[in-house]
Amino acid sequence: MLTRVKSAVANFMGGMMAVGPNGDQPGCSDLPLKFPYSRPEFLGLSPDEVECSADHIARPILIPKETKRLPWSTGYAEVINAGKSTLNEDQACCEVLVVKRRPAGPSTPNRMPMTRRRSSLPNGEGLGLRDNPDISNDLTFHYWALFDGHAGSGAAVLASRLLHHHIALHLQEVMEILCTPNLLPPTCLGEEPIDHHLSPTSQRALTRAASLRGAAGAPGSPSTPPTRFFTEKKVSHESLVIGAIENAFKDMDVQIEREKAVYNVSGGCTALVVVFVLGKLYVGNAGDSRAIIIRAGEVTPMSAEFTPESERQRLQFLAYMQPYLLGNEFTHLEFPRRVQRKEVGKRMLYRDFTMSGWAYKTVEEDDLKFPLIYGEGKKARVLATIGVTRGLGDHNLKVHDSNIYIKPFLSCCPESQSIELFKANVRVYPLVQHEHGADDVLVLGTDGLWDVLSNQEVAEAVTSFLANCDPDDQHRYTMAAQDLVMRARGVLKDRGWRISNDRLGSGDDISVYIIPLMYGNKQN
Amino acid sequence: MLTRVKSAVANFMGGMMAVGPNGDQPGCSDLPLKFPYSRPEFLGLSPDEVECSADHIARPILIPKETKRLPWSTGYAEVINAGKSTLNEDQACCEVLVVKRRPAGPSTPNRMPMTRRRSSLPNGEGLGLRDNPDISNDLTFHYWALFDGHAGSGAAVLASRLLHHHIALHLQEVMEILCTPNLLPPTCLGEEPIDHHLSPTSQRALTRAASLRGAAGAPGSPSTPPTRFFTEKKVSHESLVIGAIENAFKDMDVQIEREKAVYNVSGGCTALVVVFVLGKLYVGNAGDSRAIIIRAGEVTPMSAEFTPESERQRLQFLAYMQPYLLGNEFTHLEFPRRVQRKEVGKRMLYRDFTMSGWAYKTVEEDDLKFPLIYGEGKKARVLATIGVTRGLGDHNLKVHDSNIYIKPFLSCCPESQSIELFKANVRVYPLVQHEHGADDVLVLGTDGLWDVLSNQEVAEAVTSFLANCDPDDQHRYTMAAQDLVMRARGVLKDRGWRISNDRLGSGDDISVYIIPLMYGNKQN
Repeated sequence: MLTRVKSAVANFMGGMMAVGPNGDQPGCSDLPLKFPYSRPEFLGLSPDEVECSADHIARPILIPKETKRLPWSTGYAEVINAGKSTLNEDQACCEVLVVKRRPAGPSTPNRMPMTRRRSSLPNGEGLGLRDNPDISNDLTFHYWALFDGHAGSGAAVLASRLLHHHIALHLQEVMEILCTPNLLPPTCLGEEPIDHHLSPTSQRALTRAASLRGAAGAPGSPSTPPTRFFTEKKVSHESLVIGAIENAFKDMDVQIEREKAVYNVSGGCTALVVVFVLGKLYVGNAGDSRAIIIRAGEVTPMSAEFTPESERQRLQFLAYMQPYLLGNEFTHLEFPRRVQRKEVGKRMLYRDFTMSGWAYKTVEEDDLKFPLIYGEGKKARVLATIGVTRGLGDHNLKVHDSNIYIKPFLSCCPESQSIELFKANVRVYPLVQHEHGADDVLVLGTDGLWDVLSNQEVAEAVTSFLANCDPDDQHRYTMAAQDLVMRARGVLKDRGWRISNDRLGSGDDISVYIIPLMYGNKQN
Repeated sequence: MLTRVKSAVANFMGGMMAVGPNGDQPGCSDLPLKFPYSRPEFLGLSPDEVECSADHIARPILIPKETKRLPWSTGYAEVINAGKSTLNEDQACCEVLVVKRRPAGPSTPNRMPMTRRRSSLPNGEGLGLRDNPDISNDLTFHYWALFDGHAGSGAAVLASRLLHHHIALHLQEVMEILCTPNLLPPTCLGEEPIDHHLSPTSQRALTRAASLRGAAGAPGSPSTPPTRFFTEKKVSHESLVIGAIENAFKDMDVQIEREKAVYNVSGGCTALVVVFVLGKLYVGNAGDSRAIIIRAGEVTPMSAEFTPESERQRLQFLAYMQPYLLGNEFTHLEFPRRVQRKEVGKRMLYRDFTMSGWAYKTVEEDDLKFPLIYGEGKKARVLATIGVTRGLGDHNLKVHDSNIYIKPFLSCCPESQSIELFKANVRVYPLVQHEHGADDVLVLGTDGLWDVLSNQEVAEAVTSFLANCDPDDQHRYTMAAQDLVMRARGVLKDRGWRISNDRLGSGDDISVYIIPLMYGNKQN
């Protein structure tokens, strides 16, 4: 992201606000860093190389030195911004993690799980769980993640180091259930699990539930209602994985807040994660990065972006419900532009949280306040400050020169209320049910990519690039990622970075994964 | 709808709550009715016939006596429920309205607009606006609506008599803009409107906006920011129509509340409306009725249903933000079934408003409260009371034997936060841009239809029925509607009403419109 907050501050305030040497906001710099700033571990860069990568003039495109470092021959490439921030505020993480069954004993929900990282997995190799009785109780998952930081690099660095551990912890809690595919998750742990075909146990549970059901069980009901058959809601294994990812995001956000007490954790970040576990791909997104699947050249979007415009109604509704969050300085109503004092009493176009259309209202004194949501497209802002509405961190972020916190309007949840293609915003793609060719891929990119290239342009670029590579060349996905970053960055000309058709290239940090899907078929 | 509230009360409470002769809740009956109970005006029924139509045993299917009464040869049919409520609580309205330009003078926003009803429009006839200079400033719109009442018939009757007037009023406010297709709606009335190609006026407006933009214009900003180019948001004509429909729903709801002070207006109702104006179809839906377009046999959904399950996250979020609305009797968390006291301390599946997946939490005392959302499918309820989450009325509805109001959780807005097929939930279908055959139709139905027939079954039934009719027969859409209601109601057998494959027919009120789309092409 165009380090929105900082660019707002630096560009529009004329540098009134000091920006620290790490691109961080002031006031946090007395505390030590928990993790030093770096580039993704899998790039294998030396400190010198990290420094060289931050050349805003040359903008070198970085790829992993060792292709085998990433599972499934995953391709990756990145480039720094054209000067928006000192450091590349994107971060990335890719791991294969093995979750060990939790030792018996009292529940330890706050401890990091027993995980083992498979740091050098031969590409496409099966995990051989059945061959080795010692690890048959392990749960292996693949993990790819992109983080796009703003107002400092701290939150993105922290999340890139730790989010997967939170996911592992939550998967560990339910791994015994996940590894027993024929049984539905029990409603209450300690009960016998419910069989798909209504075992005697579940029948008992149903009878028990029946006596407490519906309106008859409503508070204050004095009558004994007639017993009726009423099923418990059945929860799928997929729902448990989705819940694990969702709660991991929340825990990560809480941890960032906690760490800020003792460490310098600057700014906030978006998070886009892909988890492959038990034959299915899960995509969770909080922010404006994007994931698409390209299969036989056809695009399937796997995420939606969360911006002031896409989340307008959620944000307006919140402000309407809790007006004190606006500090008497903002209005929750939207207008097509700022209202001027001389327009009080006139009729002006507006939208409230209930509306997707527009109507006219008589302008009142209160409408002169600055709008909660303002601007269009990449320039849209919440509280005149931030251009992305989901992510991690940002706990200290305030409206400039005020005591109005932004955080209550930001959601750390990779989730939406929309009815999506796959019903949940942590989207599920049943990978092993599809046959995939060598050119079928999942592309993840930060907004630096998608700001300048459409889904269709990306699909065409990747498909045509891969078509010209040897299908057995394990470097092909990395080279395709490099090509894609090049197409989005462009070439430096007299009038700035230019891409095809002389369009302006992205001056933002750009990070891209290209994940071949055929390896998923081999790993069920 | 299965008169949800009343059935909850009557069936589950063992008749503890007295139900008045009109199916109304007690306590309202001292006041007079504003409109007497009746069936839709266009059916042309005498009071005797209205009484005969309420035969819960025979369940006669009613169709308009005079096909030409409805515009576009629209087909309509309805049937009463199998005994769920004394009266058929569905209502319908269909009109062609002509909005007259508001007379000059002070704004009169609360007065009903100058409308003229074209009560007997020859089917498919053009409106000949250009032929008659006297009405060239009129705006004509077609209107079809279905209302599905619950807990009494009052709100549905009132809405069926008045909602179109509210829509006319809001369209009247913007009709001059709508009738000037080349000009964008001006941001502020009294300003010159903005041309598509940035007239000097809009340039001035933009310059003015630029000096107030973005972070630089944020409250408390002491600096004079550099002037930057910043466009006003452009608002389309379609957005104005959508806004008009949205605000008409709100006004209708406010009017129901107001009328309750002097009239007996029982219960609440869903509302599904279709407006055809200036060549485009707009569908607005608040509730669980449904609209689909069938074009060349292919289904395009034109509405989404609003139920406790589809709106779970909105409702949970509201309860989380304003916990007093739960009266200390409910919990905003969802569990797969009621939690029992003996389960305190155990781990149970739950979902919070942030989650689309499920996870386990340790059960606390607070979790023993009744869940805000409970039950599945047609049995899902908000606050153990109501099974639909958008609609009009219900202002007095409370949780049984408590002071907890349901209304704050209900939305009267035909709108959602989802990113839908057409971006807005008042969906727009550019009718005149498509060529339509005689068998291409828009089907509207209350949930009595859709509970037993899928979109695909409806499409197949309608398509095959119409294929067997003379394309020039103006009765074909009415006969198709009659056939559809018959297929959903079924035939009374020993084991109740049965439809194809011996499935259970709908015991609910069923109302259906079949609107041929080809007439829209003739009326641009």
